[in-house]
Formats: sequence, structure tokens, C-alpha cells
Amino acid sequence: MSTVGQVIRCKAAVAWESGKPLSIEEVEVAPPQKNEVRIKILFTSLCHTDVYFWDAKGQNPMFPRILGHEAGGIVESVGEGVTDLKPGDHVLPIFTGECKECAHCLSEESNMCNLLRINTDRGEMIHDGKSRFSINGKPIYHFLGTSTFSEYTVVHVGQVAKINPKAPLDKVCVLSCGMSTGFGATVNVAKPKKGQSVAVFGLGAVGLAAAEGARVSGASRIIGVDLNPSRFEQAKKFGVTEFVNPKDHDKPVQEVIAEMTGGGVDRSVECTGSIQAMISAFECVHDGWGVAVLVGVPNKDDAFKTHPMNLLNERTLKGTFFGNYKPRTDIPAVVEKYMNKELELDKFITHSVPFSEINKAFELMLAGEGLRCVIRMDA
Amino acid sequence: MSTVGQVIRCKAAVAWESGKPLSIEEVEVAPPQKNEVRIKILFTSLCHTDVYFWDAKGQNPMFPRILGHEAGGIVESVGEGVTDLKPGDHVLPIFTGECKECAHCLSEESNMCNLLRINTDRGEMIHDGKSRFSINGKPIYHFLGTSTFSEYTVVHVGQVAKINPKAPLDKVCVLSCGMSTGFGATVNVAKPKKGQSVAVFGLGAVGLAAAEGARVSGASRIIGVDLNPSRFEQAKKFGVTEFVNPKDHDKPVQEVIAEMTGGGVDRSVECTGSIQAMISAFECVHDGWGVAVLVGVPNKDDAFKTHPMNLLNERTLKGTFFGNYKPRTDIPAVVEKYMNKELELDKFITHSVPFSEINKAFELMLAGEGLRCVIRMDA
Repeated sequence: MSTVGQVIRCKAAVAWESGKPLSIEEVEVAPPQKNEVRIKILFTSLCHTDVYFWDAKGQNPMFPRILGHEAGGIVESVGEGVTDLKPGDHVLPIFTGECKECAHCLSEESNMCNLLRINTDRGEMIHDGKSRFSINGKPIYHFLGTSTFSEYTVVHVGQVAKINPKAPLDKVCVLSCGMSTGFGATVNVAKPKKGQSVAVFGLGAVGLAAAEGARVSGASRIIGVDLNPSRFEQAKKFGVTEFVNPKDHDKPVQEVIAEMTGGGVDRSVECTGSIQAMISAFECVHDGWGVAVLVGVPNKDDAFKTHPMNLLNERTLKGTFFGNYKPRTDIPAVVEKYMNKELELDKFITHSVPFSEINKAFELMLAGEGLRCVIRMDA
Repeated sequence: MSTVGQVIRCKAAVAWESGKPLSIEEVEVAPPQKNEVRIKILFTSLCHTDVYFWDAKGQNPMFPRILGHEAGGIVESVGEGVTDLKPGDHVLPIFTGECKECAHCLSEESNMCNLLRINTDRGEMIHDGKSRFSINGKPIYHFLGTSTFSEYTVVHVGQVAKINPKAPLDKVCVLSCGMSTGFGATVNVAKPKKGQSVAVFGLGAVGLAAAEGARVSGASRIIGVDLNPSRFEQAKKFGVTEFVNPKDHDKPVQEVIAEMTGGGVDRSVECTGSIQAMISAFECVHDGWGVAVLVGVPNKDDAFKTHPMNLLNERTLKGTFFGNYKPRTDIPAVVEKYMNKELELDKFITHSVPFSEINKAFELMLAGEGLRCVIRMDA
């Protein structure tokens, strides 16, 4: 029996209040409206951003809400005006969009779409300012326009990447956010040349994806920087060749790295969001040609501060968002890289749980265990 | 009678003490030693850096000294080991060098040669730590390895660009420093695309050369920013289309520019060295793709400070030195651009004086009159 145009009743993990375990509920998922797509989610994974908004510290709390933004699924139905997707297409929902019409989408250099740029404060669909999720008629807020902790979700077509249907969704789902963010920061923005040295600040999932980008680029040395020494062993699998723990040194880590490398690394990628790490990541690159790329999201009141001569000496400082990938245009090709074995993803997926045990994924992340936990929706 | 291998007696303008008029003296110029070239200077122009070191405020004063670093001349003789220059070659001495052997010279991206990078504190030749200038046997210090305020000077071969002998030295001499610095900052580093907008901070000679780079690149809008409104009329000749005087506004100039341009300019080039202008130049570029380039030299104690989200939103901040040109490899091609009428230089040369009146050039610069004053050595 076709579900097209019908409300679908399915299971979703609802966050009712901040910091409390999610509750699996039966929800109603309305049909997709204009420029929207309803997707059957098969696999979703947990990212720090989900935990951050679940914890809701220092934000306007928005509950009840269906979190989740790293996922893979299949299009169930499409709304009015959707021409480039059809039921059955394999897709990744993406937390930031690409309208293909604004100045950013028309620029070769930007992926910060004016219409669909990430918006953490929006809990409804932009078409009509309403939610597609409800329980007994009471609306449940969306999250990042994706809300993938649900068997079905509704997403703006500009936030949906159509991918190779042969790609295993339980693996490529992690390309929806974290892995693309780190990998793209290196290959699209830092762009190390073969044989160059790269420092990666922060050896969590995003930082290791940045290291994977350095490995794929043929970097000769990949120096991992982290305050947690237990991360070093795992990082070797990701091509990290040397480790620096800032706590082991009396001098600033940028000086330690400069000494290790004869003046500085060729490229650095900052994946922690700590302002001190950002400054170190910039100041540790070589004068004349060094490029530092900032990925980690800072606190509101942080100030990036450096002596301007560090810039005048021909260093470059850039920030990136979602690895500079345009969601619809570029992400399908990243999936192909995985299919062609140019990019390794399996090693990022350290855990897997059935949907009924989604709170275990939160526990693992809060305990700092593993990198990505994939949640199997049909289990 | 050949002068090769002989001490040459000629006129030079000697700075005997800080801030006092130069004195034209007869000096002895020793023959070039290993990897050195003796050059007959035909034209030299005055740059702010000459005045800064003549004034010698906040530096270790080094007197007596022969200043000057923007110039054009003809090789008189070469020292041991010099194979790519010969007597009669037309050359521009450059204040920073290119050894062609160090990591910087071997990098495609850097022009900050380890051996010959600008050194304002060095008063002697690096070969033997001695001066080639003397008066009655008493040594006179070199400046920037060029000391072009002399009819003859001795320069390391790595600081000599061999140029087209048809190029008029009274015009292309200004490519030795200022014009290349500004022009290269735009065309080599900011790299505006045809139709993009460019803001230039500081409408002195270097800033106007940056504007010339924007004009040559096909920029649609060139917004000049300066505290001195008298500079605006002249700037129109250099393609500047709009003017902003920060003093005319209550809000920060970056906000004024963002309003004028629907979110920010595509590129900015900072040519003042003021830390506040540097911050404004960075914050006035558009998110997603904006590139800000710092050219002006800051004070020792300045701190560049911005909110890191300004970077995360995909802005790029870069510094440049001598327009990222490698002196020997790249400057001959810039001279060709002038010969092919792709780059205008004549409009930068607002004054000309005979060598005997060199102090007039200093007076003009101190009064803020004109852009470049060319000094005719044979007059």
C-alpha cells in the first residue's frame, strides 16, 4: 500500500528535555510539501552536535525535538516542485543546504547557502514554518532540517545529496557531516602537496578525517596534537605518524612543532574549537608557504589573536565549514571516492547499535569511547 | 679605460646622521667580490623605507650609510662565480634576494629566501662582512644590500633582476620595491576575478599599485579607504571607483563597506600597516569566499584580533611580502607587462629631481606630496 501523500506513523527517538535519555515514540510524519522530500532512514550515526543540542547548555532549549543529522536513507516520496529526486533514490540528508540559486551557491568558492545554511535555532520547515512531526497532533521540533533519529523524516530538497545506490548506507552515512568536514578541510582547503607535512589538532572523528585527507594527499608526516594520550594509538590507523601532547612540554606547542619540522609544518588543520589550539595551529605553520585551516567551532566570546608579522611572513589562515563541500554538488563524488577505495570510512565506525538502544550511542560519546556509532533503524 | 677590478671613485649621497639632509660626497666603491655585481645606477627613486631608516626612530641607528633601494642601472662588472649577469646588462637591484637554493627559493609559494631575505640591520656584504663603500678608507654602511643613492653600488647577485634592455630605466626603477609590492599583492595573492569588488586600504603609492592590480584584473568596483580625503582625487587615475573615509562614519569602516556591497567585498588589500586597518580589511570581506591580504608592516607590539567565526565563515587572511614576487625569477616579467602596456607605471612618477637635489625628494615625501620622485643620477 502506497504511503505517498499519507501521514506515516513510525518510530522516532524523541528528546523531551535537555540531557534526559531519548524516548522511542510513535510519531506522525506528514507528507512532504513544496520542495521537500520524505526519506526512509536506514542508518544514522551520532555526532557531537547532536549531543551538544541535546544537552542544551548555553542555548535556547527547544524541546521536544527529534535530533540526528548524519544518516543514509531512501526517498519515500517527494513534494511539489521536486524534479531531481524520485522515490527509491539513495540519499544522504545534510545539515546544511544548497539552493543552487543564491550568491553563495553560484560562487565556486562558497558552500554557505543563503537559504539553507545551517540553522540550529530553527525547529520547523522553511516552507510554512511548521513541523512535519507530531505526536497526537502536538508538533515535535525538527533539528538542522534533518531529524534523522526517526524511521521517516522530511527534509528540504536542497539538503539532500543523491548518491550511488550501490554505496553501503551503513558506511557512507558518516559522510553526512563529520567525516566530510574533516576530510574536506584537508583536501579542499589546506590542500597539502605530496610529501608535505601536516599537523592535525584534535584527534576525534573530525580530526582523524582530516588526517585521512592528509594520508590520501600523500603527506610525508602527519603530526597529531591532542591533550588525551589515549587517542594516539588509534590515530596511527589514520596515518598519523607522530604525536605531540601539549601537556608534555613547557613551551607553546607551536614552538615544539617548529623545532620538529625545521621551522613549521606545511599545513595545519584545527579540529578542536579551542581558541588556544587555533592560535597554535596558525603559528605552527612554516613562513613563506604555510596554510592553517580552522574547522572547530569556537565559543561566542573567543578572540583569535596573533602578531600580524606572523601573517606578513606569508602564512595563510582560512576557515572552513563542512569541508567546503556543496552538499548536493560535491558529496556524491565523495561517496564515489569511498567506492573506489580512495577514502577509507570503515575504520571510523567503531560501534553499532539497534535503534532501540540509541541512548547507548550517547553514553559511548559522553564517555569518549570510539569514533562513530552507527544506529541501525530496522533493528 | 676599464674600471673592472679597480676601485671606482664616484658621487654618493651619504646619510651621516639620523634626520639630517644627505650629503653628496665622493666615495670609493670597491670591486665586486664573490657572487657580487657592481652596478652603475642611472635612476633611483625614494621609498618610505628609505625615509624610515634615515629618520632612525625606534631602531639601532647605523650611520654613516648610503640609503636607496628602488633603482635601475647597468652592470659595470661582476665578481667571481657570477655567471648569469655580465657587464652591460640592464638590471633592477632588489632589497630582498633569491639564492635559488634554499627551501623558500625552491618552494613555488615563497619568496622569503633564507640567505638574502630583507635585513634592515645589516650594513655590510654577506660574503666577508665588510662594506664596499668608503671615504678616505673609512667604511660607509650599506642599506638593504642595495644602497642605490650612489653612482655605483655593489649588490649580491641574488638581489639583481636582469631585465629587458629596451625598458626605460627611469620608469621601471619603481618596480624595485613599492609598485611590485602593491601590484603583486593584488594579482598574485588576492587574485580578484574579473567583475569582483576590491577594497584597498591606504591610497599611498603601494595602495595605488594594489588598485592598479585590481584594475588590470578587471575588478568591477575598487573601493579606496583612506583617512586623508585629498588622496581621493588622484586615486581615480588608478581605477579607484569609490571612496570611504573612516572619519566620515560613526560605525566601523568594515560595516560601512559591508552595507555598500551587500555583505562585503570579494577581496581587500591592506597597505597602511595600521592594526585597526588590518582588522577592518579582514572583516570587510564577504563570507564564503572573501580574501584579505595584508601588505603594510605593523608595529612591533600590535596584535591582530578578530572573532574566530569571521574565519570559520570561509574568509581567508593572508600576508604578503614584495607582492610574492621572486626577485630574479619574476620581476623581469613584470617589466614586460609594463612594456606590453598591461601595467601603467608613468602615473606613479609624479616628480623628478637631479641627484644633486636628492634632499628635495625627501622633502616631498615628508610633505606627503606626490607618489614617486625619480632621482636622475647623471644630472
